[in-house]
Amino acid sequence: MNKGIQPDWIAVDWGTSRLRAWAMGQGGVLEKRHSDDGAQALSNTMFEPVLEKLVADWLTPSRMTSVVCCGMAGSRQGWVDAGYRLAPCPVTNPLSLVRAPVNCGTMQVWLVPGIKQETPADVMRGEETQISGFLAQEPDFDGVLCLPGTHTKWVRIKGGQILDFKTFITGELFALLSEKSILRHSVAGGKWDQEAFASAFKSTFQEPRKFAGDLFMLRAQSLVADLGASAARARLSGLLLGLEISAAQRYLERGKIRIVGAENLAKLYADALAMIGVSSIHLNADTLTLSGLLQEYTRLTMLDRVS
Amino acid sequence: MNKGIQPDWIAVDWGTSRLRAWAMGQGGVLEKRHSDDGAQALSNTMFEPVLEKLVADWLTPSRMTSVVCCGMAGSRQGWVDAGYRLAPCPVTNPLSLVRAPVNCGTMQVWLVPGIKQETPADVMRGEETQISGFLAQEPDFDGVLCLPGTHTKWVRIKGGQILDFKTFITGELFALLSEKSILRHSVAGGKWDQEAFASAFKSTFQEPRKFAGDLFMLRAQSLVADLGASAARARLSGLLLGLEISAAQRYLERGKIRIVGAENLAKLYADALAMIGVSSIHLNADTLTLSGLLQEYTRLTMLDRVS
Repeated sequence: MNKGIQPDWIAVDWGTSRLRAWAMGQGGVLEKRHSDDGAQALSNTMFEPVLEKLVADWLTPSRMTSVVCCGMAGSRQGWVDAGYRLAPCPVTNPLSLVRAPVNCGTMQVWLVPGIKQETPADVMRGEETQISGFLAQEPDFDGVLCLPGTHTKWVRIKGGQILDFKTFITGELFALLSEKSILRHSVAGGKWDQEAFASAFKSTFQEPRKFAGDLFMLRAQSLVADLGASAARARLSGLLLGLEISAAQRYLERGKIRIVGAENLAKLYADALAMIGVSSIHLNADTLTLSGLLQEYTRLTMLDRVS
Repeated sequence: MNKGIQPDWIAVDWGTSRLRAWAMGQGGVLEKRHSDDGAQALSNTMFEPVLEKLVADWLTPSRMTSVVCCGMAGSRQGWVDAGYRLAPCPVTNPLSLVRAPVNCGTMQVWLVPGIKQETPADVMRGEETQISGFLAQEPDFDGVLCLPGTHTKWVRIKGGQILDFKTFITGELFALLSEKSILRHSVAGGKWDQEAFASAFKSTFQEPRKFAGDLFMLRAQSLVADLGASAARARLSGLLLGLEISAAQRYLERGKIRIVGAENLAKLYADALAMIGVSSIHLNADTLTLSGLLQEYTRLTMLDRVS
């Protein structure tokens, strides 16, 4: 049902587990929508109908609407493989946007490619758009962005370029260990125990080799030493962050750290960094994603690639 | 259907995912059976009927048959909580066997308690019986047993006592990462690449802090550097073993290592230890479990606790 919104273009963040779309006008966001049709659940022919269903009434029969989409829709298992640009590289390059094949005659879809690094091998897909949004705010930033999530990224930025980056599967490990492993019995239902988090973080940060043994100790302490779920859960989180940050230390040398992510998770990282004397600033990830998509769209129109 | 077997007693190993029973006579094993009724799938009232069904025709109406059972049937979520003995302690103590409540008038069931350690907190349940079987062969052993599995244990033994031990959830981490994480795409269907295993093992053994970052690198290399599934799978295994063995180093000081476990897994541990100059001897876990249960039964009869 057309409610009368006729956006100039549509911004889309198509993640592994969620699809989000914004109707964009001159003044910014006209309307936003989301669905649980994440890229992981879709075969490549399903992307167009799923997107069309979500945004149908934003499209105008009389003209072509551009859609700029970042995230997993551009992965090998996605809509179409948008590939990777090779770091070090500028954070955006409108020439590298990839057209997705569509049957619909009233929208054209541009996918943002990811960024890869050869040595050591690493990849990002989606984060490059948040970084682009961040650089729109602070074009001369010289420092490190930490983007916590399922797969946390640490990214060194200078002169508008992504210099190098490193991914840790800390968030995924936390989910697997707290939901699928023997530890689930020990951490279920807990609140939060900041002191337990802090002591576990410091322990693995200082002695990362202890990590694998300390994991089972959580279970053992809940069986024989009445360790509560709150403390166990916070300690699991602390052990994982200690291991990650001990390995990410070379990203801390420059001292200028911005954390881009959901508030709760960003706070954990900020707390952990503060414990080792590193200050950081938190930035909202959603705002940066949208700002990054706007960067892509703006450069695209400047190139006159929009038909 | 009674096929005429009338065992003196019945040995049972009731693990998390499997139930195994042996009909025991003067000359040893008369018959063995198993089922997939692991302890994890049973509520406490289901243990008796499940066991009775498996061994019904081994029971004799005219007398009581003793069943000695080790493993997770004695856990808090099992048949009845058989508790833990506190290490350091002798490897067996027949006075600590716990009677399970049964309705059946022709069997009595004894559960072997686990062993706990207070500092650092740790627990074992089932392994104590394998260790008991091992000590029946080598009563004067002074050294370390490594029992690889879902939760690998390293145990220091001297003078017939368990001095201390340490558990690593290495096997569970391998299963979660290779089956449930993003890495499953990169390791599925591979054979084995011993060279990849060796180099990954050495890397984490020497620099355990690199573990969390090296995990995602497996995924990235399969995306951007054509890392094959065989090498990725072997490297995942090597990374995990490197982390474990770097933390288990104080168990290697004495130099006398026995590995008790399934052949493939024991070989991995032996290979890894050989890379750092530690020799080991492999022992069959099933043989030791049965031998350990025989130790418990023998001491039980000597105490005249069998009614």
